[in-house]
Amino acid sequence: MAPQPHPVTLIPGDGVGPEVVLSARRIIEAAGVAIAWEEAEAGAEVFRRGDTSGVPRATRESIERTRVVLKGPLETPVGFGEKSANVTLRKLFETYANVRPARELPGVPTRYAGEGIDLVVVRENIEDLYAGIEHMQTPDVAQCLKVISRKGSEKVIRYAFELARREGRRKVTCATKANIMKLTEGLFKRVFEEIAPEYAADGIAAEHLIIDNVAHQLAKNPAQFDVIVTTNLNGDIISDLASGLVGGLGFAPSGNYGDGAAIFEAVHGSAPKYAGKDVINPTALILSSIMMLRHIGETGAADRVEDAILVTLEEGRAMTADLARQAGGDVEHAASTSGFTDEVIANLGRQPRTVAPRAARPAEVGGGGAPLIAPAASALPVPHARWSYGPEEAAGVERRTAGVDLFLESWEAPEAAGPALAALAGDALRLEMLSSRGTMVYPPTGVAPDAVGLLRARFVAREPTADVADADVLALVGRVADRFRWTHLEKLHVFAGEPGFTKAQGQ
Amino acid sequence: MAPQPHPVTLIPGDGVGPEVVLSARRIIEAAGVAIAWEEAEAGAEVFRRGDTSGVPRATRESIERTRVVLKGPLETPVGFGEKSANVTLRKLFETYANVRPARELPGVPTRYAGEGIDLVVVRENIEDLYAGIEHMQTPDVAQCLKVISRKGSEKVIRYAFELARREGRRKVTCATKANIMKLTEGLFKRVFEEIAPEYAADGIAAEHLIIDNVAHQLAKNPAQFDVIVTTNLNGDIISDLASGLVGGLGFAPSGNYGDGAAIFEAVHGSAPKYAGKDVINPTALILSSIMMLRHIGETGAADRVEDAILVTLEEGRAMTADLARQAGGDVEHAASTSGFTDEVIANLGRQPRTVAPRAARPAEVGGGGAPLIAPAASALPVPHARWSYGPEEAAGVERRTAGVDLFLESWEAPEAAGPALAALAGDALRLEMLSSRGTMVYPPTGVAPDAVGLLRARFVAREPTADVADADVLALVGRVADRFRWTHLEKLHVFAGEPGFTKAQGQ
Repeated sequence: MAPQPHPVTLIPGDGVGPEVVLSARRIIEAAGVAIAWEEAEAGAEVFRRGDTSGVPRATRESIERTRVVLKGPLETPVGFGEKSANVTLRKLFETYANVRPARELPGVPTRYAGEGIDLVVVRENIEDLYAGIEHMQTPDVAQCLKVISRKGSEKVIRYAFELARREGRRKVTCATKANIMKLTEGLFKRVFEEIAPEYAADGIAAEHLIIDNVAHQLAKNPAQFDVIVTTNLNGDIISDLASGLVGGLGFAPSGNYGDGAAIFEAVHGSAPKYAGKDVINPTALILSSIMMLRHIGETGAADRVEDAILVTLEEGRAMTADLARQAGGDVEHAASTSGFTDEVIANLGRQPRTVAPRAARPAEVGGGGAPLIAPAASALPVPHARWSYGPEEAAGVERRTAGVDLFLESWEAPEAAGPALAALAGDALRLEMLSSRGTMVYPPTGVAPDAVGLLRARFVAREPTADVADADVLALVGRVADRFRWTHLEKLHVFAGEPGFTKAQGQ
Repeated sequence: MAPQPHPVTLIPGDGVGPEVVLSARRIIEAAGVAIAWEEAEAGAEVFRRGDTSGVPRATRESIERTRVVLKGPLETPVGFGEKSANVTLRKLFETYANVRPARELPGVPTRYAGEGIDLVVVRENIEDLYAGIEHMQTPDVAQCLKVISRKGSEKVIRYAFELARREGRRKVTCATKANIMKLTEGLFKRVFEEIAPEYAADGIAAEHLIIDNVAHQLAKNPAQFDVIVTTNLNGDIISDLASGLVGGLGFAPSGNYGDGAAIFEAVHGSAPKYAGKDVINPTALILSSIMMLRHIGETGAADRVEDAILVTLEEGRAMTADLARQAGGDVEHAASTSGFTDEVIANLGRQPRTVAPRAARPAEVGGGGAPLIAPAASALPVPHARWSYGPEEAAGVERRTAGVDLFLESWEAPEAAGPALAALAGDALRLEMLSSRGTMVYPPTGVAPDAVGLLRARFVAREPTADVADADVLALVGRVADRFRWTHLEKLHVFAGEPGFTKAQGQ
């Protein structure tokens, strides 16, 4: 009896998407894997039809059924939707871990060839500035909220360690800017430090490096890295940097893993100028489909496809134009997308000579494979959280409101605005300081930073340990609103005795 | 009559700071430049004495007098101050342009040697996430405000173009994440596009690239770049990446330029384990001091010092241990900091052979030199701003408040919280949607993202074009506060007919 075919949602996407998706599909089928493809739409055409999300309901429903997606790049045409359909798909299905392997490939010449780069960037894929929550504070000052949660951090950090364990990797590097952003990036770092000891017994070392140093080290000595786990924007930048070290986006696969679905896609864009010309290099999507095969448990087929693409690159008999250009080959007679695909299919069953074939390599190196076992269902130790996420834990945290930060659109000199605001503070609160772009400007510090028309006024309880009531806050804003234009209000929380807010620069 | 000496504030700093500062000072003096040094304190000792800013008043006053600083790295010891003293200095003196040249150096072996890397990263140095404004929204969710102003963007972008013109450079690349953050990073991109045409007549090309692509291209083909101008965090990461391409932080100078002061410093840290051992490579601070000499108008001396350090690196007779290690030289008999300095001094007056000596090179290439002429005092064209910053312009912008975003600490299911909040909306407002980490969760979208205990409720005016009154907003918050814990409130502005807020993902 033939095995039950795996249901997979196939999104051809825009530009060169259909061609690279077809290449991967032909190779998977040639490798003998039975897949029940559900072809589905997303991207440019969907936006043009007036769906502002770019992802139609039928596509969402298919993914809810199959829980696995292989997709080409999607375009977000200007003027039809303001959010990227690629990002919307990742968000809707909560694929919290973006996995980007960067590994030296035979036959792909780079400045780093022979150094043995074999790293995986695990990028948090939901939070951070990609929550996309932006508000103009004044006509000339824009703001975006960077949001980092303990739960979001813990999920992706645990994913990175589980990936390291599964693939036999030896080190996880956490990359943050915690030295500057002590609450947001600092939370990610603290969660990493809490979770890391659970994996020490597996021989997985843990280190934390500042993100700019990671970028520097990736340029100087990339072979030192194994798994890098990081927040969303940091991960965006360094994963593209890492793929630049090993041949570029034409060779950069990715997997987006969530509890409910996994999405496999090439990192490159839709390259509309090459669309329909049968010239695009399909390697990135083929490598992504290998990650997909491992994810659905087809490890044998994944190994065969991986060996076949390695043989194809190593021998260089079929090079697409981009690779021929890099390798100094014959660009005029470069292989087509379909010709390259034929060659990979012809090489199924062969093993590479200059790099270790799959069977000879330990564990799952380079894969980025199986889905994360959900912590609830596993035997994992309980994390050493200061408090764990969840309504009961949050309710148990001792708390008080120490004051508020009120943001005002104002060009008044701090020496004038300060006393005026102090006089409006009322009985419960007092004005502690004013700041401009994070630097204290009142009480005067002796230097006067440039004004941009936005002041932050910090009011704190007159009684240092008092819990400020909502009524007092709203009454304060009402009084201030008679004299100033306000735009934004933040409570200053003290949770479990720790201030949940930072000082101003120079304070 | 001897020329009037230039007053310069000299901050030796922490760790290896005093040694590299002494090296630069000796070379400057040997080059015949008369400087009235004002030695001043900042950093670890200052924090330990209880000054939470790390920068004493006497130091601030010296800088207000001299307006020029040459400094070693500063430490921010844990537990004494929560803000970096390096950052505080840049903020207090509003040094809005951080200039980081990355140029191939003779005798410094790298994978990119011979490709002619010669680029300058101009990083906005005041705003963005470095404003450091963080608020815990719930016990488990942290937030940092990313703040980008038109004025801050315009100043640094204009600086970058002026630098390009002064140094005879041909292209300015603007690097942002405007595709995701359309208001904040988008503002920076728009201002760039407004200013760029003013410099077209100087033959300076302008292009915009997405920051992750810039990181990718820096790894793949860095010689394509000339000047890169970018927001603060992006610039932090790619400037360290760029220095990794040309030999590392031991060779990475920087200048921080403001209207009132300029600060020159090496990028590297205080390296306490090497402190006092006379082994550190002082090249980065020597290169920074060359930038300082150009800034104070001592271009002849700057050229002589630059030629002398190029000769020293090119000949490799005195290599500090770090360089000997990179170049495969004799680490055992490496030059000391003072020995290397002696060699540079001995080479004053000589010219390099393998690279063009200073006099043979056009303009100010590699320098990062003179202070920006303030736009007010110059003949620069008026920027093509949609509106220019300033109280009069802001007052003239047509505006209304379309609603508010209210952030709630809540674990309630959106299906329960949504109707409850809708019922509290009142006569002036209606609930438009709820989102979790930027993704819409009410009205239901058919998928249920992971909850983190923080919901954003968007209330908009019932009458679509109404201007919502403060009283209605405060009454709304009062009603909601009886039933929900709220933490943060944002007005939704419409400025000049354009919504000053983004949609949620999936909306």
